[in-house]
Amino acid sequence: MSDGAGKEIERLIDLMARLPGLGPRSARRAVLAMIQKRSLMLEPLAQALTDVSATARECVECGNIGTSDICAICADPRRDPGLLCVVEDVSDLWAMERTGVFAGRYHVLGGVLSALDGTGPEDLRLPRLVALAGSVDVREVILALGTTVDGQTTAHYIAEALAGCSVAVSSLAQGVPVGGELDYLDDGTISAALRARRVMG
Amino acid sequence: MSDGAGKEIERLIDLMARLPGLGPRSARRAVLAMIQKRSLMLEPLAQALTDVSATARECVECGNIGTSDICAICADPRRDPGLLCVVEDVSDLWAMERTGVFAGRYHVLGGVLSALDGTGPEDLRLPRLVALAGSVDVREVILALGTTVDGQTTAHYIAEALAGCSVAVSSLAQGVPVGGELDYLDDGTISAALRARRVMG
Repeated sequence: MSDGAGKEIERLIDLMARLPGLGPRSARRAVLAMIQKRSLMLEPLAQALTDVSATARECVECGNIGTSDICAICADPRRDPGLLCVVEDVSDLWAMERTGVFAGRYHVLGGVLSALDGTGPEDLRLPRLVALAGSVDVREVILALGTTVDGQTTAHYIAEALAGCSVAVSSLAQGVPVGGELDYLDDGTISAALRARRVMG
Repeated sequence: MSDGAGKEIERLIDLMARLPGLGPRSARRAVLAMIQKRSLMLEPLAQALTDVSATARECVECGNIGTSDICAICADPRRDPGLLCVVEDVSDLWAMERTGVFAGRYHVLGGVLSALDGTGPEDLRLPRLVALAGSVDVREVILALGTTVDGQTTAHYIAEALAGCSVAVSSLAQGVPVGGELDYLDDGTISAALRARRVMG
């Protein structure tokens, strides 16, 4: 199916359409908008992509994606090495960072255990986690995994694997999301929030 | 608001978030997906954008966006120069091309008349259209403009402007979209479809 644009443009649309959240139609709109704002969008984007393509890499410490071998978080001496937050993926790490409330360090697992997907413990970045948890530096391991069955299975697996270490293992609280209305919440969340209720005042 | 990624990555996310159809959240997901599929996505995309940035330009004939001064459609000798399709924007031209049923040529207006936006006839690419319509080559001008008030106003304006030329001026049919259910259609569309009803068989 041809758009009547050139080969290079069709290829760009084709590539953009493979990105998550974009389809053929929105990719076409995005590419057209880029071209129509050449100096504002197309040229800076081409440069930014080339820059990222040249510099992006995985942090050898935590698994975060950044532009140096040791990411900005691992290299920051102000971050508390005593707090280690375990996340499934880089996107979860970035989501935690955006809140700006966590001042410790991270460990990216690279997935969660999943019988369905055939993801076993050997597929996750567990050895470094166990080594870190056994070191004197780390006081607490915070499991910030999803509240899916797989996420919770993984959290329990890690908690057991770290049972021999002298670290506290915690997990994020489950409950009513901020701004959430009970009426729209699923039963599981309401039950969890009720079980974890807190005495006020 | 920092993601904990590098400066180059944040800049790329920032630029991607300005594309139509993407926001900060989906831009971040898209950029992460690119980086995680470096050789499949990031490098080809960087190359494709650089290519398009170097080659994309407006066709001097019709206003389509392509990779040469005369676009592939205007340069194609198999396209009938007797049929001229007038569209508002390049995206409309591409939409027409995807159907694959139009074998004529195009003229991109670059907008429609709009009292609200202050778009007057002098802001549209009208002179070439009038010149073409007055030439012996063109038999029919097809107005493929939106069925908005502005689109229809523009269609009437062009029809009047071309009244002196010996060309037929037509516009796309209005009616029930293919696959559409009456129940979900607005009154205006149903009325238009009823007025334009066709005798069957």
